[in-house]
Amino acid sequence: MEHPCEQIPLAPADLAAAWRRTRPPRRLVHLDSAAAARASWAVLDATAAHARREAEEGGYVAAAAAAPVLDRARDDVRALLGWPAGGGAVAFCHSAEDALRQVLLGLPGGVPTTAAHAPGEYGPNVALLRRLGVRPVTVDTPHRLDPAAFERFLAGTRPGLVHVTWVGSHVGTVQPAAEVAAVCAAAGVPVVLDAAQAFGHVDTALDALPADADVVVYGTSRKWLAGPRGVGFAAARGPLAHRLAPLEQAEAHVAGRVGLAAALAEHRDLGPAAVRAGLARVGTAVRHRLAAELEGTWEVVEELDEPSATATVRPTGGSLDPATTDLAALRARLLAEHGVLTTFAGVERSPGEMRTPALRVSGHLDTAAQDVDALVAALRAVA
Amino acid sequence: MEHPCEQIPLAPADLAAAWRRTRPPRRLVHLDSAAAARASWAVLDATAAHARREAEEGGYVAAAAAAPVLDRARDDVRALLGWPAGGGAVAFCHSAEDALRQVLLGLPGGVPTTAAHAPGEYGPNVALLRRLGVRPVTVDTPHRLDPAAFERFLAGTRPGLVHVTWVGSHVGTVQPAAEVAAVCAAAGVPVVLDAAQAFGHVDTALDALPADADVVVYGTSRKWLAGPRGVGFAAARGPLAHRLAPLEQAEAHVAGRVGLAAALAEHRDLGPAAVRAGLARVGTAVRHRLAAELEGTWEVVEELDEPSATATVRPTGGSLDPATTDLAALRARLLAEHGVLTTFAGVERSPGEMRTPALRVSGHLDTAAQDVDALVAALRAVA
Repeated sequence: MEHPCEQIPLAPADLAAAWRRTRPPRRLVHLDSAAAARASWAVLDATAAHARREAEEGGYVAAAAAAPVLDRARDDVRALLGWPAGGGAVAFCHSAEDALRQVLLGLPGGVPTTAAHAPGEYGPNVALLRRLGVRPVTVDTPHRLDPAAFERFLAGTRPGLVHVTWVGSHVGTVQPAAEVAAVCAAAGVPVVLDAAQAFGHVDTALDALPADADVVVYGTSRKWLAGPRGVGFAAARGPLAHRLAPLEQAEAHVAGRVGLAAALAEHRDLGPAAVRAGLARVGTAVRHRLAAELEGTWEVVEELDEPSATATVRPTGGSLDPATTDLAALRARLLAEHGVLTTFAGVERSPGEMRTPALRVSGHLDTAAQDVDALVAALRAVA
Repeated sequence: MEHPCEQIPLAPADLAAAWRRTRPPRRLVHLDSAAAARASWAVLDATAAHARREAEEGGYVAAAAAAPVLDRARDDVRALLGWPAGGGAVAFCHSAEDALRQVLLGLPGGVPTTAAHAPGEYGPNVALLRRLGVRPVTVDTPHRLDPAAFERFLAGTRPGLVHVTWVGSHVGTVQPAAEVAAVCAAAGVPVVLDAAQAFGHVDTALDALPADADVVVYGTSRKWLAGPRGVGFAAARGPLAHRLAPLEQAEAHVAGRVGLAAALAEHRDLGPAAVRAGLARVGTAVRHRLAAELEGTWEVVEELDEPSATATVRPTGGSLDPATTDLAALRARLLAEHGVLTTFAGVERSPGEMRTPALRVSGHLDTAAQDVDALVAALRAVA
């Protein structure tokens, strides 16, 4: 189906080729990395090989043998946070949501009474806070988080923690999470950073924070790192790291953790800074193209040059009535009729910020100009 | 390493051969099925094939395509509970522990104030109850649960729920869980059954319960069904099934769920009753043999003819001083020096019942007389 030699990549050609050649060929125009990226042969093989080893030697014998691989993966996680090898605590969990739940249940003193967050916080995170009995408190800050707004907030209130989502699920804005974390550290309030959409995608270095700042970062395997589903992580630093209950789920998809280790190793080998720059180029190219081609019908939600690969669009008029367009159905038609995979982002992803649903377009390093052509043609065909 | 033709199986020869031929050869004497059994080629392939499909088509496109397979698996779970196809709600979770957590957090009215359980309850279950703020209350019943004791207890107290572990992690006794559930149903108290060690192992039919009894059963994939790690399930029936919050974790090891579906299909094809009878024969044969060969040094904890495949032994004297023997170290030596894999069961597995640790021996349908010979010889060598 595909003719890779004819593709015009949006990322630097060497990175695009490396990404494309190391994983199974696509069966569709895959613009859904922010949901789950396409795993590599190395990840698929590491995962399957561990599962086979479990069958041959027993699950726990195989897990013990994989311990050094997982420890190296923990250091790869630390490196992406700008932490020294062996610094802080890194735990593998079932998913990002599970990691947040483990953190909240594992805090010294138990689940906190309150947690502060921005208006654009990821809806399921707020729902989980509520479900566990935490009262969410909204900080008055614009969409692009203003660290000074958090500083003012913390001058008057002392929540149990501040929760910051580094890159949203509903929009590709890269938030100044490290700067907000610094404000929290200065105020002596623990900060919990949701890096599910940020890890392996944008700069997640926290090395400017004082080493004694209480910070927890959690994320997932399946998105930008293109590791297996069913694996997440939580990493903690500062005195809190020693006071948290153990966060790691002992009984888990260990084969997937080994697969994540392979994905982290590939990410390290490609060069995290080069991957970030490549992904930002993909997102920027997609947004500029969509803005130019779809003007009058769709609008791009982010700033066009936002340094992330996540692009979101929403109907503005023309052949698409914003008030009546069923975006979930439209996304299903893009897939079924045109083989173009995107994400329907309903307002539940960020009830405090979204007024209308959006269509999310998230390629990866192998996304080519032809993929955007296909998306544009499909969007014109269904609208 | 192995010469299957020379093996003298403890289970009926056809079942033993079917089990052995359908999975990778063992690299050691695997007597650890109660921790994680050895997956079949079909399970390994179904899991890996789904993961590859995720890489080719996208994780959520692949998940949508797998929905009919997972629905069939839900019906296979129901069948093992004696429930009609489509009856009640069956949710896939990350693990048995995660399933219990989901159930407790998902109860109408929130986490219950109290939960009643037997003295021999699985320690980590009690710890999870406490961690979520549930007060555990112990029912005064002998080791082999007495339904009448639960009846008397419920006549005087009304806990939020009764929690029953069908087969323990620390001992192979098959508890009359269905009878206890019937008592709870008659008292109008919801019952939550931990079937992690029971499912695919012993009779888990609940068809004698009234259809309007509030019952939840949860378990795991990796033990007797020999499915992948990182997958569990919760099944609910009665009015409660409609009042529980959705239990299924949407973001999960979906490939593993597809693998569990393959394991359930194999279990169905082998015949659940035949598997149960075969596993009971394995356990009975192991216990009689260990009791006879190790008399004076080790004692078998269960009744010798208990209809389960889990056998547990503990030191009684002779060359092993029960007070000073380090069973964890002994189990490590069995593995490292003799290639015999067993489980160290510390008292934390059942703090209310265990006084000393035990060594757990849990073969499966392919366990042969020679495996028990190897275990006996290894136990003599290390003691």
